[in-house]
Amino acid sequence: MSDKLSPLAPAQSPALPDIAGVTSRVARAHYKDWDRCDLTFVELAAGTTVAGVLTNSKCPSPEVEWCREALKGGKARALVVNAGNANAFTGARGMAAVHKILAVASDHLGCSEAEIFISSTGVIGVPLPEDKAEAGLRNAFAAQPCDWKDAAATIMTTDTFPKMASSSAIVGGQTVQLNAIIKGSGMIAPDMATMLGYIFTDAAVESGLLQEMLSAATAKSFNCITVDSDTSTSDTVLAFATGQSNAPALTGFGDDGADAFQAALSDLCLQLAHLVVRDGEGASKFIEIAVTGAVSDDSAKRIALSIANSPLVKTAIAGADANWGRVVMAVGKAGEPADRDRLAISFGGVTVARDGLVVPDYDEAPVAAHLKGSEIDIAVDIGLGNGKATVWTCDLTHGYIEINADYRS
Amino acid sequence: MSDKLSPLAPAQSPALPDIAGVTSRVARAHYKDWDRCDLTFVELAAGTTVAGVLTNSKCPSPEVEWCREALKGGKARALVVNAGNANAFTGARGMAAVHKILAVASDHLGCSEAEIFISSTGVIGVPLPEDKAEAGLRNAFAAQPCDWKDAAATIMTTDTFPKMASSSAIVGGQTVQLNAIIKGSGMIAPDMATMLGYIFTDAAVESGLLQEMLSAATAKSFNCITVDSDTSTSDTVLAFATGQSNAPALTGFGDDGADAFQAALSDLCLQLAHLVVRDGEGASKFIEIAVTGAVSDDSAKRIALSIANSPLVKTAIAGADANWGRVVMAVGKAGEPADRDRLAISFGGVTVARDGLVVPDYDEAPVAAHLKGSEIDIAVDIGLGNGKATVWTCDLTHGYIEINADYRS
Repeated sequence: MSDKLSPLAPAQSPALPDIAGVTSRVARAHYKDWDRCDLTFVELAAGTTVAGVLTNSKCPSPEVEWCREALKGGKARALVVNAGNANAFTGARGMAAVHKILAVASDHLGCSEAEIFISSTGVIGVPLPEDKAEAGLRNAFAAQPCDWKDAAATIMTTDTFPKMASSSAIVGGQTVQLNAIIKGSGMIAPDMATMLGYIFTDAAVESGLLQEMLSAATAKSFNCITVDSDTSTSDTVLAFATGQSNAPALTGFGDDGADAFQAALSDLCLQLAHLVVRDGEGASKFIEIAVTGAVSDDSAKRIALSIANSPLVKTAIAGADANWGRVVMAVGKAGEPADRDRLAISFGGVTVARDGLVVPDYDEAPVAAHLKGSEIDIAVDIGLGNGKATVWTCDLTHGYIEINADYRS
Repeated sequence: MSDKLSPLAPAQSPALPDIAGVTSRVARAHYKDWDRCDLTFVELAAGTTVAGVLTNSKCPSPEVEWCREALKGGKARALVVNAGNANAFTGARGMAAVHKILAVASDHLGCSEAEIFISSTGVIGVPLPEDKAEAGLRNAFAAQPCDWKDAAATIMTTDTFPKMASSSAIVGGQTVQLNAIIKGSGMIAPDMATMLGYIFTDAAVESGLLQEMLSAATAKSFNCITVDSDTSTSDTVLAFATGQSNAPALTGFGDDGADAFQAALSDLCLQLAHLVVRDGEGASKFIEIAVTGAVSDDSAKRIALSIANSPLVKTAIAGADANWGRVVMAVGKAGEPADRDRLAISFGGVTVARDGLVVPDYDEAPVAAHLKGSEIDIAVDIGLGNGKATVWTCDLTHGYIEINADYRS
């Protein structure tokens, strides 16, 4: 948890309503030498369904491996999140800590271990201490329920503000509520990141459908953001549906209200993804990169991410420099079909280059004014087809170096 | 040209011998508002053969397109290098400047335009002014021949020191000499970079063979370095063989001395590649990353580059932090076969992790001492096969941000 609030943080956190069937408690497990809660225990009503999207890393944490396994059952009774220690690359001792937590939590709730979901985040390579995990968990069992903001704050590591969002949908004439908390500010790249996100809804959604909906939402949100192109060993997004509202259960995309629920879920994921970028390590500017005219949507996304991940583009934006040449460079290195002489580039809606060269009588003043702000829009038209994609990133600043050259020590 | 010398610069520049058939001249073309030579004109003896490796960017500069075309002829009489303006993404006006240079230089030498090679480096998106190019070129024609160091200094942009190297080989009982100059310190990544490198030899080498040899040398040198993962629109390495030594001509790999020449060329390319990394923008540490035990050499190279390009690894090294967890993260995100529980990682020859977890009684002191130095070795064994690769990079520091958030303005 950093002392310095991101300049891109929202002015205030939203107040989230209760979600029937979801009860959060936080406690001190003392995973690090700090005076804060670092263990979150969320109890879920019996009958809760679950879906998830996990890191593509080839070296995932044991928590990720466990969640992948447990998701097959599609049922959840609890979520445990440890902050301060990622428990990744810790061999058998890492997995033993996971099993200890599973045993303690399932015993407490009288449920199957397959209904307990676990995440850990923080330093890699140090086994999560089993005894601290157990003691922390028992402290949580004894604690009073907490509000959403406390839960969002307890899962934080290098984050500078707690991140939460909500949305709602009408299903079968009834309002269903979706709340979410998320953490992450570095090691953020598509295919997930050091990002732990949890979505809770009182809707009743069959787990297979929930999985399809979450995957669809992820493709256009979490997988469209990047802070530093690095992908974590622990990335996790889980969605829990308690079914405690009066709305009819959703079992297929054809059901009444399924479209509305998907829209609410997608909106929620996008809100969360933007919050993560807004807390990008060292970020001073929020950057939206929209690519159009590519040969396909996938091609557009790869080009957009090539721009978003380019250190030279990100430092240019940090310096409020309308250096569109670096955007051209990033388009060129993406490896996707592009024709230099058809490219058009604009900043903040002002076209800078068209048909492969700077526009006649280019006036840099409005572009420079846009770049001095903190919300930056870059649009690139490839001029070859109808493929389009939008991604989000932040600039690369001294703050990133400060945070990361001195994080573990 | 920066005021601040890279701390990784060699203590002194080597004195390079003459190469028969190579005459360099430099001049002021005033491409920018600076008081320095910025145009290099190298005249090559009739009969000189040429080979080249050019950027894979899909948005290359007109110079790159021209070199790709001219290389088909395999013959060279001159090289012109412009510094301060990359002439990339400049449409028809950019190509017109190239044709002007071709016309003036080929007229001066009485040769075909196809024997003139051109590179430009600097800001992207501003057409190279034809009149300045022509005047600069005519100034160069009238200038006295210069030494290798002057040529190496004249092709520089953000470089902090001129880069040159030499090697030699015995071919048919005769010594042949190879000299080279190179520039580049940012926008450096495999598949070439904003890197312009020129190799000159008095050996006689058939152009097809020279191409094969240069491509082989590039694969293990220029394509194994990265500063910031960004790839330039202008990357170029050209090798010129004047045939002015008394050594017999090389026409195939079976010729006497061909192996020796390949070895000398490969050594030279590696020297040059290391010099570029040593001048990486903001670099304070030179990092060698050796990956072994991958399923193939290609897989090892992709894993090594994933580590070398990771901002989190590069900032950890900048902070002298033995954060091997970030190395695991970078292995995991490479997308190549890897098994967390077989990984071994060492820094400076000291094994930190083995079989998926930190070694028993890990003593961080010798590792910390190594990381405080300026020459860092990271070795990763994947434990799956015999594939291996070595790549080189530098750390990511405040200096990189300083240089790049304020370059164009």
